[in-house]
Amino acid sequence: MQTVEFYQKQFLAYLEDFTNFQEPKNLYEPISYILNLGGKRLRPVLTLMSTEIFGTNYNKALDAALSIEVFHNFSLIHDDIMDDAPLRRGKETVHEKWDINRGILSGDAMLILAYKLFENYDSNTFQSLVKLFSETALQVCEGQQYDIDFEIRDDVTILEYIKMIEYKTAVLVGAALKMGAIVANASQEDQGNIYLFGKNLGIAFQLQDDYLDVFGDPKTFGKQVGGDIIENKKTYLYLKTLELSSDENKTQLKYLYELNPEDKQDKIDTVKSLIVLSKSDEETKKEIENYTEKAFSILNSINIPEEKKNKLKDFGRQLMTRTI
Amino acid sequence: MQTVEFYQKQFLAYLEDFTNFQEPKNLYEPISYILNLGGKRLRPVLTLMSTEIFGTNYNKALDAALSIEVFHNFSLIHDDIMDDAPLRRGKETVHEKWDINRGILSGDAMLILAYKLFENYDSNTFQSLVKLFSETALQVCEGQQYDIDFEIRDDVTILEYIKMIEYKTAVLVGAALKMGAIVANASQEDQGNIYLFGKNLGIAFQLQDDYLDVFGDPKTFGKQVGGDIIENKKTYLYLKTLELSSDENKTQLKYLYELNPEDKQDKIDTVKSLIVLSKSDEETKKEIENYTEKAFSILNSINIPEEKKNKLKDFGRQLMTRTI
Repeated sequence: MQTVEFYQKQFLAYLEDFTNFQEPKNLYEPISYILNLGGKRLRPVLTLMSTEIFGTNYNKALDAALSIEVFHNFSLIHDDIMDDAPLRRGKETVHEKWDINRGILSGDAMLILAYKLFENYDSNTFQSLVKLFSETALQVCEGQQYDIDFEIRDDVTILEYIKMIEYKTAVLVGAALKMGAIVANASQEDQGNIYLFGKNLGIAFQLQDDYLDVFGDPKTFGKQVGGDIIENKKTYLYLKTLELSSDENKTQLKYLYELNPEDKQDKIDTVKSLIVLSKSDEETKKEIENYTEKAFSILNSINIPEEKKNKLKDFGRQLMTRTI
Repeated sequence: MQTVEFYQKQFLAYLEDFTNFQEPKNLYEPISYILNLGGKRLRPVLTLMSTEIFGTNYNKALDAALSIEVFHNFSLIHDDIMDDAPLRRGKETVHEKWDINRGILSGDAMLILAYKLFENYDSNTFQSLVKLFSETALQVCEGQQYDIDFEIRDDVTILEYIKMIEYKTAVLVGAALKMGAIVANASQEDQGNIYLFGKNLGIAFQLQDDYLDVFGDPKTFGKQVGGDIIENKKTYLYLKTLELSSDENKTQLKYLYELNPEDKQDKIDTVKSLIVLSKSDEETKKEIENYTEKAFSILNSINIPEEKKNKLKDFGRQLMTRTI
């Protein structure tokens, strides 16, 4: 088993070959553009790692890894249209650079291309990969819909929120790992467990994202610290603060979340103090720890050598201690 | 083998079961809506007919037929957004009734649901169906992109136009028939030929659509007669008229296609007279006949009883002599 950097490098070389597209240029140009915007390529790296963890050479999983990355970027294009987002990784989003129609159609083509990337696998592997892919992709759409629905609902529960991030983010992490296990012909049990490991790690990862959005270091955090608060996003931190606050503080928090003031910093500071006052920051850190530990304990029951488990745990810890 | 009406009825009953969806309601509601807007269900009927033509009961093909219909309606939702169309089958389009975001996301979910509908087939059939589906779906996206590109190009050739309608419309007709052949385990040769039969019939069908848009009977034609002319659509009729007209008439036609006048009827009448003057109406009818005959001659080489060929020919002729 190799380092994360090794898998990243191999994946990027494979991606480069893929983005030499054909006609019509207007359909394929945005696809090359978004796929070359960069990013950590965590999901495809997980697929390659997982394949080697289960004893098969990573190069058998390059197509599956690429499919995961193509799908992820499809969802970014369509989500950015829905969120009216001008920037992605510091560059113009596809619908900003071209237009909404190009974003819709290129996204559609990417979803199909993601399926096409499984075509070189034998029919049994193909069917397993495609079924997992479809199930996951549909959950990602459902998660996105819940996310949209939650914007206008004021009775979202923490359970509902966890289900939303599970669908929107975490299942794809689970699927990325399970695809590696499928390509490596791992047992059904191991496939199921590596999926659960990934899903729980994915939930922890997203909760960490919520936490860093408020408490991250402005010097190292890629996005604007406090961005979720400015956009009145009902994150875990927000919902937990509502749960743990006095009636008075709860009312104030709800009131602040109905405002879009000129002075954003004042709003951020007040919401932040309400979070800290209710100890929801501590509770969120505990919950991140819980999901990480849950992921690690599932890992223990998988039939792979200890050193490989440790590599996965190292990678998981690395993700969880990130400050960016 | 049964009548077209029989297959329509069976298909509609199967569709009804499918559209009882789960949560999130906001994602699945537009899917039920568009699938229940009606239409002739030609594509799924072709899948069911094809299955029985190759000696297998139609009910084995209901999932494949439904997949074709779900895909077709996915493409309608996204195309209607791109075309900014307010109406579909006389009712509000999805993005009009709800909003663009609902249209994008529900469409995405439908594309995935179309793939999921193949899951009950054995792994070899599954792989054949999914590969054909992906290839076809990608061509439909490419066809849509060509159609968009052609709007601002003034050097579109007739060959390019035929390729565009082949991708945007005809390959799905071919695929609908080939799926029936795959489900029925027909030979590779028969699969290939029934596909070509459908593709050529699909091109004839689309050319017929172009023709009826100008020369159809306003009393029976579902859309506004002359709609393509008002929208300056570079259809086969338009391109052929450019090819066959004198320089003077060519200049006039191009000029008219740069106008969006108040008096639409005057523009329609003038363009119509230029078409007739160049005999492009007759040429278009000939071309429709050519593609239909090509389709029928391919049918002759398929290994099925004569009476079944005749049923397919009857259905083809029925489509070609429609006035609506």
